[in-house]
Amino acid sequence: MASESRLLIIMTGGTICMKPSEGGLIPAKGFLEAGMAPRPSFNDGAAPETLGAYTEIGASISLPSLRTPISRYGRHIRYAVLEFEQLLDSSSIDAHGWSQIARAIENNYPAFDGFVVLHGTDSLAYTASALSFMLGNLTKPVVFTGSQAPIFELQTDATDNLLDALILAGSFCIPEVCICFQHKLFRGNRCTKVSSNQFDAFASPNLVPLATVTSSHIQVNWDMIRRNATQDLLNAKIPDVQMDLDTTHVACLRVFPGIKPEMIDAVLRVAGLRGLVLETFGAGNAPGGPDNALINIFTAAVQRGILIVNVTQCLTGSVSPLYAPAMVLGRAGIVPGHDLTTEAALTKLSYLLALPNLTAEEVTRRMAVDLRGELTQTGDVSFAGPG
Amino acid sequence: MASESRLLIIMTGGTICMKPSEGGLIPAKGFLEAGMAPRPSFNDGAAPETLGAYTEIGASISLPSLRTPISRYGRHIRYAVLEFEQLLDSSSIDAHGWSQIARAIENNYPAFDGFVVLHGTDSLAYTASALSFMLGNLTKPVVFTGSQAPIFELQTDATDNLLDALILAGSFCIPEVCICFQHKLFRGNRCTKVSSNQFDAFASPNLVPLATVTSSHIQVNWDMIRRNATQDLLNAKIPDVQMDLDTTHVACLRVFPGIKPEMIDAVLRVAGLRGLVLETFGAGNAPGGPDNALINIFTAAVQRGILIVNVTQCLTGSVSPLYAPAMVLGRAGIVPGHDLTTEAALTKLSYLLALPNLTAEEVTRRMAVDLRGELTQTGDVSFAGPG
Amino acid sequence: MASESRLLIIMTGGTICMKPSEGGLIPAKGFLEAGMAPRPSFNDGAAPETLGAYTEIGASISLPSLRTPISRYGRHIRYAVLEFEQLLDSSSIDAHGWSQIARAIENNYPAFDGFVVLHGTDSLAYTASALSFMLGNLTKPVVFTGSQAPIFELQTDATDNLLDALILAGSFCIPEVCICFQHKLFRGNRCTKVSSNQFDAFASPNLVPLATVTSSHIQVNWDMIRRNATQDLLNAKIPDVQMDLDTTHVACLRVFPGIKPEMIDAVLRVAGLRGLVLETFGAGNAPGGPDNALINIFTAAVQRGILIVNVTQCLTGSVSPLYAPAMVLGRAGIVPGHDLTTEAALTKLSYLLALPNLTAEEVTRRMAVDLRGELTQTGDVSFAGPG
Amino acid sequence: MASESRLLIIMTGGTICMKPSEGGLIPAKGFLEAGMAPRPSFNDGAAPETLGAYTEIGASISLPSLRTPISRYGRHIRYAVLEFEQLLDSSSIDAHGWSQIARAIENNYPAFDGFVVLHGTDSLAYTASALSFMLGNLTKPVVFTGSQAPIFELQTDATDNLLDALILAGSFCIPEVCICFQHKLFRGNRCTKVSSNQFDAFASPNLVPLATVTSSHIQVNWDMIRRNATQDLLNAKIPDVQMDLDTTHVACLRVFPGIKPEMIDAVLRVAGLRGLVLETFGAGNAPGGPDNALINIFTAAVQRGILIVNVTQCLTGSVSPLYAPAMVLGRAGIVPGHDLTTEAALTKLSYLLALPNLTAEEVTRRMAVDLRGELTQTGDVSFAGPG
Repeated sequence: MASESRLLIIMTGGTICMKPSEGGLIPAKGFLEAGMAPRPSFNDGAAPETLGAYTEIGASISLPSLRTPISRYGRHIRYAVLEFEQLLDSSSIDAHGWSQIARAIENNYPAFDGFVVLHGTDSLAYTASALSFMLGNLTKPVVFTGSQAPIFELQTDATDNLLDALILAGSFCIPEVCICFQHKLFRGNRCTKVSSNQFDAFASPNLVPLATVTSSHIQVNWDMIRRNATQDLLNAKIPDVQMDLDTTHVACLRVFPGIKPEMIDAVLRVAGLRGLVLETFGAGNAPGGPDNALINIFTAAVQRGILIVNVTQCLTGSVSPLYAPAMVLGRAGIVPGHDLTTEAALTKLSYLLALPNLTAEEVTRRMAVDLRGELTQTGDVSFAGPG
Repeated sequence: MASESRLLIIMTGGTICMKPSEGGLIPAKGFLEAGMAPRPSFNDGAAPETLGAYTEIGASISLPSLRTPISRYGRHIRYAVLEFEQLLDSSSIDAHGWSQIARAIENNYPAFDGFVVLHGTDSLAYTASALSFMLGNLTKPVVFTGSQAPIFELQTDATDNLLDALILAGSFCIPEVCICFQHKLFRGNRCTKVSSNQFDAFASPNLVPLATVTSSHIQVNWDMIRRNATQDLLNAKIPDVQMDLDTTHVACLRVFPGIKPEMIDAVLRVAGLRGLVLETFGAGNAPGGPDNALINIFTAAVQRGILIVNVTQCLTGSVSPLYAPAMVLGRAGIVPGHDLTTEAALTKLSYLLALPNLTAEEVTRRMAVDLRGELTQTGDVSFAGPG
Repeated sequence: MASESRLLIIMTGGTICMKPSEGGLIPAKGFLEAGMAPRPSFNDGAAPETLGAYTEIGASISLPSLRTPISRYGRHIRYAVLEFEQLLDSSSIDAHGWSQIARAIENNYPAFDGFVVLHGTDSLAYTASALSFMLGNLTKPVVFTGSQAPIFELQTDATDNLLDALILAGSFCIPEVCICFQHKLFRGNRCTKVSSNQFDAFASPNLVPLATVTSSHIQVNWDMIRRNATQDLLNAKIPDVQMDLDTTHVACLRVFPGIKPEMIDAVLRVAGLRGLVLETFGAGNAPGGPDNALINIFTAAVQRGILIVNVTQCLTGSVSPLYAPAMVLGRAGIVPGHDLTTEAALTKLSYLLALPNLTAEEVTRRMAVDLRGELTQTGDVSFAGPG
Repeated sequence: MASESRLLIIMTGGTICMKPSEGGLIPAKGFLEAGMAPRPSFNDGAAPETLGAYTEIGASISLPSLRTPISRYGRHIRYAVLEFEQLLDSSSIDAHGWSQIARAIENNYPAFDGFVVLHGTDSLAYTASALSFMLGNLTKPVVFTGSQAPIFELQTDATDNLLDALILAGSFCIPEVCICFQHKLFRGNRCTKVSSNQFDAFASPNLVPLATVTSSHIQVNWDMIRRNATQDLLNAKIPDVQMDLDTTHVACLRVFPGIKPEMIDAVLRVAGLRGLVLETFGAGNAPGGPDNALINIFTAAVQRGILIVNVTQCLTGSVSPLYAPAMVLGRAGIVPGHDLTTEAALTKLSYLLALPNLTAEEVTRRMAVDLRGELTQTGDVSFAGPG
């Protein structure tokens, strides 16, 4: 008899579960029954089974489960859907929602082989990045997905994305927080949403995909998969979860030509701000402003204890202290963010600021170091010429 | 004897003319002599010739000129280089620099067949967008280019980009403000810089290129080239130039998860602000904030007379009022920016606010209308089913 | 009440309907019942309805039909499936199969709004090319599709491809033979299969897609859609069908380094051969062979009345008489095929040779002329320099 | 003082050195003087120096050398150009030319740090594949390049390609036969020419590039570079060279719909044929033909001792025995070629047939095994599900 993997689908909301309303599309409950049960790809008709689980606030709950037909990897994927009490439009998610997701995973960690998180695409890259930092020592797959069109629409990417996510999380030992979209599996903290309406909406501009689904098989780039020290203790250990990121302490600001020093100063003086992701031009350049007004404002903010991280506005590439303006930023105490996406930089900053007992120096140091595969550290390049 | 096209190269600064200094790379003068004269692609060795021109501040000047070998289009390109008195790092350009470029083109319009503007890549898409609005009734090509590596470096994209720009501006009647990069010619107000270090640094995500340089010929998409009413008056009319855009009246703000209402309010209350480009998630969604605080702030700003334009953070696609959050923004009086890039939205807003005697309603109306090919107006889709 | 489009799905075989057997995957009958009826995207549960149709050999038949839910274009797509008596693996299709498809379309032309042809991917580009020539004066869509994985497999592209094809053929007046694959609609005679296992298996290397399916709408490039003179007579006229292409008269041969003159001669002397598609290097070059042996063989064949067409082996681009070897081929009487794909060249040649009463000169002339949008005629390039 | 790398450029002919003639473009001698010396990227003006070398037929020769300016990798590249006595149009190259190249490298191996081979693009992928097999135990870079436009044309890719090739071969220890084109370095036996006229003409469809040139540095995928056992003996050992491939023993044949059994039989009976590369549809399928005529012909040929290798016509992907027709080919004794390009399959077959004292079984076995990184052996996939 074919074995079963057991997955928990955590439904946070998003386009994938939306239905029309007078005020536009809004998230709707009952995803398993209305969205999945009628489709043969998600329901092989096996006798129903109830799974015990815990809600995002820790309450014990019994969930109906379904299972897929047997996959080419020789097993059924049995899954239950845990719907958030309050379904979210992803444009409104923040650290509170991230904690709910982390808690749902933590509470159900021992009882499931992996997790598929359904989420709106708008902030999906932010949430996946946040969770990649919040969930330490992960030994099971956490695969985020969503869709550009609701599962209830006729022409939808929801079924492809969801099925790929289930098969990947249920068949392969990839203990990372990932995003699965349009037949590709990306590292979650490397992604960005690149299209508002194409089905092929996500890219991982500075890292090739972790896996690709083809018609004949799933090709996993095993060399790239991160392995945790505790991996041999599979299923044994609850991951090391850091809750309570506080996005109210951090902000992003993208420079543009003619940006006024007053605007930057106003942002840097928002009450409670402890960190800023500065999205600069090209390889890390920002305007100096008249009489270096901008630089002076940055310098003053750094001296007030605000951590400023420099990332590029460009889709691909990295900041580098090659040009005079970038060097000036570096001398002002702004930390180079290498090839971090804005999404990863913002959530990493929130995460580091939430860690207890960390000195400012240590936060600064870790910002520039690879913690979860989120950045490429370019050390001394290892080339060798002849002779 | 082969004929000559006569072009003015306007050197504003940027990586293309940079040399190393103790403080990083900085722009250097003497581009024609040091960068172009020694290279056979830019100098066929013909007897030197002096061309009369006017500087960006209107002073008469005599410039040495060189010419390329004969191209496959049967002519030499003769060019002079007008270097800005103060060369710029493009991360610091603003409306003042845009006016200098516009004035340099206006002053020299009758005497040259076209213009190639050399500019840093960091803000190139902003400047090309600005000039596309500032220069009305254009009848000659204005081709911007630059490079990711200085022309003085061994491995550089400068010579390809510059030569393509010269040949395109000197051989084809494309009366638009364009960006030429890596063998492609893009409409200037459709571009964005997508890589901080790849040579292939620019993309025009929502519009195919106007032309492509191949090894056998230059393929121009003639159907897409804009034609001005006065085009039959080639060389006869100085373009209709709008100077004095004021970027201090406008700003960009990119939303992110957890963005604080206070931050948005602070930006919208920066002294003198008249317009804001709001970079939203996906198809135009923004967080509502606790108790709709963000929406209330936007509504209040619109009521104070600030024009807010909604564009997508995504590389491709368009805003559309499909989702509840986007509809809410629309009801708050925020203008949908269709598929405008941020670069085009910001400069278009500056341009419209600089036009004399325009009512707020008229500015709002024009923002959503195609003026220079900068956006795709999706009217009623013209399909027809059978029967 | 929403209106219905009525489509005939012509099932010829191919991976899309395959099931495992001891000898590998083989085509299986009962596609509507087993593959489509259980899926809510293809079956809205409306009361069954029987449609009258004709088989590929002209026999009258009653077919059960289903219909899709209502699409965003405001209509249901009602469809019946006409299965070929003998389902084909597409690697074995030839002119006989093409005639069966043409006849099935011709026989059912008045009664349906459009046609979706299901076909294996291996020879899909050949068959779609052939049909584009065989069906003249088309006024209704003929959309080919298939899949890289069977519809009966868990992870399959079959449902996406088939649903897109139904919506496109049932909602838009695109009177061309097309291929629909992975959310793109290509002109059929411009396609080639580019991947043996990726879902994204087809490309149209020298022509942008006719339409693209996004999450918000279907974007049709209306400027590119071919319009037939009789289009105003929608539904009124049976297309002008040319049957009986004879592939036994034509062959393809791809040159390679070291190819022996004896091999080329052997191919050119196969009994009955009237035309050859010669796949050359780059822009149309072929080896000359020792003492020009190859050229002599080609010249002799042309003099024997064999029509030889020169197409490039490269995925993109065109043949052009730029290089000495290509000029030599031209002088030998070999016809340049512009940017024809091999698939289009072979089927066009078969088609022209099957037309009655055509002189050799006329066949040669039409080979190099655009008949169905299959090639790009590069006339005198319309550029204009200044002055 | 900056150190120098010393490279030998072997000029075999091709577009890169072509000049116009009455009969079209033809290769011209004097490349160093006319093409390289006048360009500052290739000539820093240092005092001339003469280098001793050997011609492709072993004659001792003194060659003038030039050197590049110092690169970012801290060294000059000094180079001499060895021009073949008879420059070739690459469409006419065959095993004789491959031996000349191999001999030129072997003869000059001890005296140079690496080799850049200039070659026409038409058959470049064939030649690079052939040399990858012919040169065993390579310890120095052999980088092939060429161009789509002659170096003597105004708009040319020749200077970029040639400079990148020199810097790569002179700065990095990549002991492989590579192709350098448009800022990418590919493994030679993985390439194919994909465009007849775009500058971006080469692709390595089933393998990512070995290195990429960006504006800030050259990024080498060191994990992918092959290392030979003798690598610690750098400069010490002449590579193990296998000459005398015989392309007259091998052929390629691409199947198409309607292909006649007589044609295949004619090709398989060409005098002297010992091996055939059969380019099949998709994942390895071929028509069976009426009454399995084709299969019978293949079976008979295999029984006569002809080795037939099955590769896919598709740009990407691999043959696999999934479908009935592919299984039938396998049972007929046809060897599956995995993801070999046609170029690699043909030259590997020539190479194996040229090795002395190899049994037919051994040739067959090696055909399906990775010898020089030319194919991806998909062993048992190493995945692990939970539980």
